[in-house]
Amino acid sequence: MTVFTAYIELSTKGKTDIVDLTPQVKDSLEKTEISCGTVTVFVVGSTAALTTMEYEPALESDTKRFFEKIIPESMHYAHDATWGDANGHSHLRASLLGPSLTIPFNEGKLCLGTWQQIIFIDFDNRPRKRRILLQFIGK
Amino acid sequence: MTVFTAYIELSTKGKTDIVDLTPQVKDSLEKTEISCGTVTVFVVGSTAALTTMEYEPALESDTKRFFEKIIPESMHYAHDATWGDANGHSHLRASLLGPSLTIPFNEGKLCLGTWQQIIFIDFDNRPRKRRILLQFIGK
Amino acid sequence: MTVFTAYIELSTKGKTDIVDLTPQVKDSLEKTEISCGTVTVFVVGSTAALTTMEYEPALESDTKRFFEKIIPESMHYAHDATWGDANGHSHLRASLLGPSLTIPFNEGKLCLGTWQQIIFIDFDNRPRKRRILLQFIGK
Repeated sequence: MTVFTAYIELSTKGKTDIVDLTPQVKDSLEKTEISCGTVTVFVVGSTAALTTMEYEPALESDTKRFFEKIIPESMHYAHDATWGDANGHSHLRASLLGPSLTIPFNEGKLCLGTWQQIIFIDFDNRPRKRRILLQFIGK
Repeated sequence: MTVFTAYIELSTKGKTDIVDLTPQVKDSLEKTEISCGTVTVFVVGSTAALTTMEYEPALESDTKRFFEKIIPESMHYAHDATWGDANGHSHLRASLLGPSLTIPFNEGKLCLGTWQQIIFIDFDNRPRKRRILLQFIGK
Repeated sequence: MTVFTAYIELSTKGKTDIVDLTPQVKDSLEKTEISCGTVTVFVVGSTAALTTMEYEPALESDTKRFFEKIIPESMHYAHDATWGDANGHSHLRASLLGPSLTIPFNEGKLCLGTWQQIIFIDFDNRPRKRRILLQFIGK
């Protein structure tokens, strides 16, 4: 049993930009000598989050519309008034979806469905450089 | 330290069908030789998800009503228009709740509360056969 | 590779009380001999949950307002009618946010962002004593 750490570096557009991380997670898995275990994908930061979805343009726009409906950018947030950041909605969206996702793999392959991708959503209100951490544990 | 994989096979009714997985996860844990560690429960697919709840009929109906309120089945989703699947709402609900849940166990017992069960929610709009993966890691 | 279990004991005020667990998780990590791996933070119970956020008073009040908006305390829940608990909203909020959070650490340090804290939210409708489990796995 061992632990292996990798990173994904991204430039995002912000504003609920949705990025498919599956190819990079697969690449990192291939570089480890671990064939069986779990990978914890983790967002370092408090205005972006992770989940899985069928990554296709129509669901991308549905997802953006959903977050705008339940946590609108235009609403008043106390965070904005206090800090002048204008990204109160980004924080709430990120906390709701969560920063952490743990995915099993066996025989060197991620156990995802055919139409299931690992996605990163940058909820911040401006373009960002992001670093996502991958912690592989297994044998 | 070792890794052990098990599967749960389910037939669900779809339409936010809520299934208590706790007995099957306990059974699988008893079959491993691991007594202390974590189990990652993972949904293979993009229209179902996992969480914990007090599994009783009143909360089951409250949960269904909640998802129908925030992501209504009857709304228009771009995914439906493009793919003719009519399950755009299923995808959004599943991504929001998430496909992955990691639960600790010690001395061969899951560390759940008395009124806390591991639940699987099938958000798809039709009955489905499902395969849920359990990745045990520990000693 | 090894597994190490620790607990955090809390007294909360309930009613979406938000508690920063980061100092206690750091303390527990320092007491292990594990320097590299993951910690699964787990809520034992079905009316509280975990996520990360920038822990500051304005976002605290934004978060409380958000949960009151999407799952109002004053609404009618079948759970309340059946069990006389009046905490149906607490259950729904907790299931939505989720009981489990897995955080990587390396060289004895949690891999969190500067403005990212591990937070516990007690959604119950009364003060509670809580026990949160930390399962460290690593080397």
